[in-house]
This record gives sequence, structure tokens and C-alpha cells, in this order.
Amino acid sequence: MLIRRTTSWPRKVFSGVQPTGALHIGNYLGAVKRWVELQEAGEDVTYCIVDLHSMTIPPDPDTLRHNTLQMTATLLACGIDPNRATLFLQSAVPQHAELSWILGCLTTMARLTHLPQYKEKSANMKEIPLGLYLYPVLQAADIMLYKATHVPVGEDQIQQLQLAQSLARAFNNKYGKTFPLCETLVNDGSRLKSLRDPSKKMSKSDPDSKSCIMLMDPPDLVLEKVKKSVTDFKSEVTFDPAERPGVSNLVTIHSLVSGKSTDEICQEAVGKNTGQYKLAVAEALIEHLRPIRELIEQYSRDGGYLSSVIEEGSERARATAERTIDEVKEKIGVDCFNVGRLRRHVRRENK
Amino acid sequence: MLIRRTTSWPRKVFSGVQPTGALHIGNYLGAVKRWVELQEAGEDVTYCIVDLHSMTIPPDPDTLRHNTLQMTATLLACGIDPNRATLFLQSAVPQHAELSWILGCLTTMARLTHLPQYKEKSANMKEIPLGLYLYPVLQAADIMLYKATHVPVGEDQIQQLQLAQSLARAFNNKYGKTFPLCETLVNDGSRLKSLRDPSKKMSKSDPDSKSCIMLMDPPDLVLEKVKKSVTDFKSEVTFDPAERPGVSNLVTIHSLVSGKSTDEICQEAVGKNTGQYKLAVAEALIEHLRPIRELIEQYSRDGGYLSSVIEEGSERARATAERTIDEVKEKIGVDCFNVGRLRRHVRRENK
Repeated sequence: MLIRRTTSWPRKVFSGVQPTGALHIGNYLGAVKRWVELQEAGEDVTYCIVDLHSMTIPPDPDTLRHNTLQMTATLLACGIDPNRATLFLQSAVPQHAELSWILGCLTTMARLTHLPQYKEKSANMKEIPLGLYLYPVLQAADIMLYKATHVPVGEDQIQQLQLAQSLARAFNNKYGKTFPLCETLVNDGSRLKSLRDPSKKMSKSDPDSKSCIMLMDPPDLVLEKVKKSVTDFKSEVTFDPAERPGVSNLVTIHSLVSGKSTDEICQEAVGKNTGQYKLAVAEALIEHLRPIRELIEQYSRDGGYLSSVIEEGSERARATAERTIDEVKEKIGVDCFNVGRLRRHVRRENK
Repeated sequence: MLIRRTTSWPRKVFSGVQPTGALHIGNYLGAVKRWVELQEAGEDVTYCIVDLHSMTIPPDPDTLRHNTLQMTATLLACGIDPNRATLFLQSAVPQHAELSWILGCLTTMARLTHLPQYKEKSANMKEIPLGLYLYPVLQAADIMLYKATHVPVGEDQIQQLQLAQSLARAFNNKYGKTFPLCETLVNDGSRLKSLRDPSKKMSKSDPDSKSCIMLMDPPDLVLEKVKKSVTDFKSEVTFDPAERPGVSNLVTIHSLVSGKSTDEICQEAVGKNTGQYKLAVAEALIEHLRPIRELIEQYSRDGGYLSSVIEEGSERARATAERTIDEVKEKIGVDCFNVGRLRRHVRRENK
């Protein structure tokens, strides 16, 4: 069972990913693989490419466009099935920004200033971009628009999710039961470490490119990066993240791509030294990534298909989002003349 | 000529009013009367009932609903002609919130903290509502969505308009010429004073209800309020706002409702003492307000008509807003798959 606790709300999974272009295996094994598992388990899943979040530090438009397409190809290649998951683009659903404004009016400045991610990221900035401060509110709107009950996130997102919970509570208290309080699904295995410095998280922005394996890395590069990964002076293979972070990181990767437990893996590795073991990890990883890499390449060549997937997903997302925003507007009293309802009514009549 | 300076952009007037329900004569003579004059002068005018701004301190939903209808009736009664002006409801056009998010990403926290209205209003608050801090960004979006070149505002709004100007400049610099830098049209006569304490601005929220004349006040109440207005110990009628704010306030009101200059009015009043003059002011005001009051009553009874006016105005506003947001999204790179354009294309094909 992937989702343990239940609520009185229909179970609904929502998560988002920024269109950063390529993913590394930490993003994949920690987040996207989990998304696919939830989809395979038959959950009602909605996954969003959150391009409006990318605007918090405005990127080059062509890069953003390219990265959005690349992310779509990558998610499909990782196993997101647009027939079973609602996969869509945030900017194609205007209700995210609308709900974000409405929710923003239910919170205080201090509430946002105290969020740890904001404090951390803004600490050394002279001029703090407003988007950096505001994006947790948009994130809450993302989740609440689909009345999500379960939200897979990394550990660093837990407190932002608490904002979504408190905004749902505030709205429900003021206007009546409207939103579930979402639960976070934190993947403990999500924090893969840098291959060059296992005290740090694996990150695409690490200046040492050997610290991180990208989904698109060809087999020889994967092999090289794993071989050169930093372990320690002991030769046997054990799983002890606190004392032996380097080799344990490899065991974690191995476990995630093979589906075996870390215990099983250590037992299989008895007799191998870490040098020999690295070859086994590299081989398992290469085999796991091969079909994904090939599919990313294939999808990337078919812009028409990517476009239609996102178009259909966004249409479906919008239908849900419109229902929620209509309900919200009616409850807060900005539904005068019910323009939206009238419009849909007219549209139906014209059909 | 109501608008003097010109730009290379097509001249477009935009202004907004919060749905506060009833207006007092300060709102009317200072703002709405000017809106009507701009409309009568043949300008391209767009006027918005900004209900999303009302959410910055969330009101009771039924009150907000009632006040929105009442404001619509009032604007029509004051002379806004829905065939010549685009009169619409902000919450019916989702692009306001969308553009607000995008523009917010182009500014810094410090920029908003330094706005005088924010500083003033937040000074004595323990918990500052986020909406109070953010609303100038939404206000900038309101204006920019319609590429307004001229924005009638009260003096207290000038610096917020400077934020709109700097956001337009920032966007144009980064993404190419997209938005005009709007100019403010400040009405000097806009600051009517309290009838009970002419050192203060006329305000609906003044605890002394005699300090303020509402558009819906019946003639005998108008007469009573003018008679009891505070002037000074001199008996002649002169116009000298600095030295004689009370009587000068009456002369201003008289001038605005009669269309005569303050000089003409003072000459006509030669020989009258302030007590006698008050009767003349009251009479002129009552005659000016009579048809407006009657029309407000008449429109208020016809919810169907009010609804259709706002429905049609919002439809028209939305068409412009969609064009702008499409252009913006294309420029910033969140137009992947051009979902909106595709959708409209499909809609056209289905017709």
C-alpha cells in the first residue's frame, strides 16, 4: 500500500516539477519513479509541470520553452502514462494564479517570512525577488485547486506543505468545508548524495559534473562517474549512511534501480571490494536507464505528440480547476453575475 | 482637452473602483464624474469593479455580492454608458491574477515595502495581511492588461502607479516593447473634506455620519448635513482652502456640481453670509444628485439588466486581456504548446 492514511475526501495525488530540462537520477529515483508507482497502483494522480514557478527567477524564454518540452518527454519516458495520469502545464490553467491571489489574502506576511526555504535562500541576497517570497502560496494553490489529499514531496518541502494545510484550514473555517488538508508523502530514499562529496545532496548545479548522473548520460559516462565516486578506505560493502555515506549512497542507488532491499544488496556483495562493487552498481544503473534514455530521445523528436499530450492533460486539469474556482468564488462572494457559469451555459446551448 | 500629453500608443483610459457599495460625493465628484467626462469626450475608456482587491481584507461574501451589484447600479446612474465604456468585473477576467503573478516575479520585496500606502496602513498592524502588501502588483496588472496609457487616480495613488510604470519598463527592457508607461490623471478637486472637520478628507468610514454626504442621501438629509457643516467665524464667502478650509470645501462642491468656477461662485455669493450660502450649496447639490439617486434606485431593482451589463462588459474585457496575456506568455516562454491558441483555433473550427 503506497498511501496509508485515509481521509473522508476522495484520494487524490498531486505533485509538480519545475521545467528544468534534464533530470538527474536523484530527481528520478526520489520523485518521478514514485509518481509512476502511484499511477501504477491505480491512484488518481495529477502531475504538473510548474512553469509559473520557474518565473520566480525569470529564465531565458527559449531555454524555458526547450526545457518544458524536454521535461514532458522525460516524464513520459520515465513511465507517466497520459491516459492514467493528468499531466499538464501550469501556465495553461489560469485558475492557479487566481486561487493564489485569493489564498494570499488569507495569510500574513510573517507567515511567509518564517518559512525555512525562504529564510535560507534569501539570507545572502541584497535584493529579494518577490517571487521567491510568494511561491509557497502559488504552490498551495496548485495543490488545493485539485483538492489533492496526498502530495509526494522532498523533505525540504515539508514546511511549505504546512502552509497549504494552514491555508486550507483557514479557508474551511471561514467559508465552510471546501478543501482537504493534504498529507505529504515523503520519500526517505529521495536524498541521493553527490558522488564526489557524499556529505552533500546530489545536485545538477554542482560545479563538479562528475558528482551527478543525468538520465541522459550515455553508459560509458555513467560507468566513469560511478567508478570515480568517492567512497572510503574500507573495502567491504555495507549500508551505514551515517558512518559510510559514500558506499551507502551507491547501495541506495542500487537498491532503488533493482527493487532489492539494501540488506539483500549487501549480502550479494559479500566478497566484493568497493571497486568491484562499483562495476555492479554501474551495470544495474545503466540497464535501468537505457530504455528511459532511448524513450527521451524518441519523444523529444516528436513535438506534435508532446504537444497533444499536454494539450489534452491541460484541458482535463482545467475542467477540475474551473469547478474548484467556481466553488471558491461563490463562497467568497466574487461570483456576481456568475459570469463563468453563464458562459458555460451559453457554450452548451451553442453546441 | 481632458488628456493633454500623448504617447505613441493608442490612447486608452483605465480606472478601477472597489465594490464598497455606496459612494459619497467625494468619490463621485472626484473620480466617477471624471470617468464620465472622459467617456463623453470620446476616449477609449475601461472601468473595472475591482472585487479581487476587496479580498485583501476578506469581507462577508453576501455583503460583497450586494455591494458589487450596488456599485454597478451607481456607476450606471452616474452616467457610465456600457455602450461606450467597457464596464466589467475584475474577478470575471482570470488574466488579472495571471499577469499579477508574472509581474510580481519582476520586482523585489523592498520595492513594495517602500510604497507609502503600505507603510502608512501597516504601521500599526501586528499581523500584516499579505494582500495589503501585494495589491499594488495586482493594480499594475489591472492597468497593463489593457495597455492603458492614462489612469485617473486620487493623489494617494500616484506612487502605486509609479510601480506600474516601473514594472512596464522592466518588462519592456527584458522582453521587448509590450506595455505603454501609463500616465496618471490626477483630479485636483478630488479631495473633498469632511463637513465636520475640514482638516480631514471626506470619508465614509468617519464615525460622524454628518461628515459625509452619500449619493443616496435624501434631500432633507443633504440639507441638514450642509447646514450643520463646520465653517469659521467670518461671514462672507471666499475661496481660500489653506486659511478657510470649511467654506472653501463648500465652494468646491458647489463649483463641481454647477460647472462654474470658484471665482464665479464667490461673486454670486457676494452679500450672502455663510449661513445663507449653505442653503444655495445644498439646493445645487440636491438638484444635481436627484436624478442620480433616482437612477440608482431604478437600476438596483433590475438585477437582470445589471447582470447583462457586467456580463457583456467582462466578455469584452476578457477578449483584450486574452490578447495581452497571450503576447506576454509568448514573450516570457510559458506558451509551450500554445494551449490557448490551439483551443481558440479548435473552437473556431467547430463553429
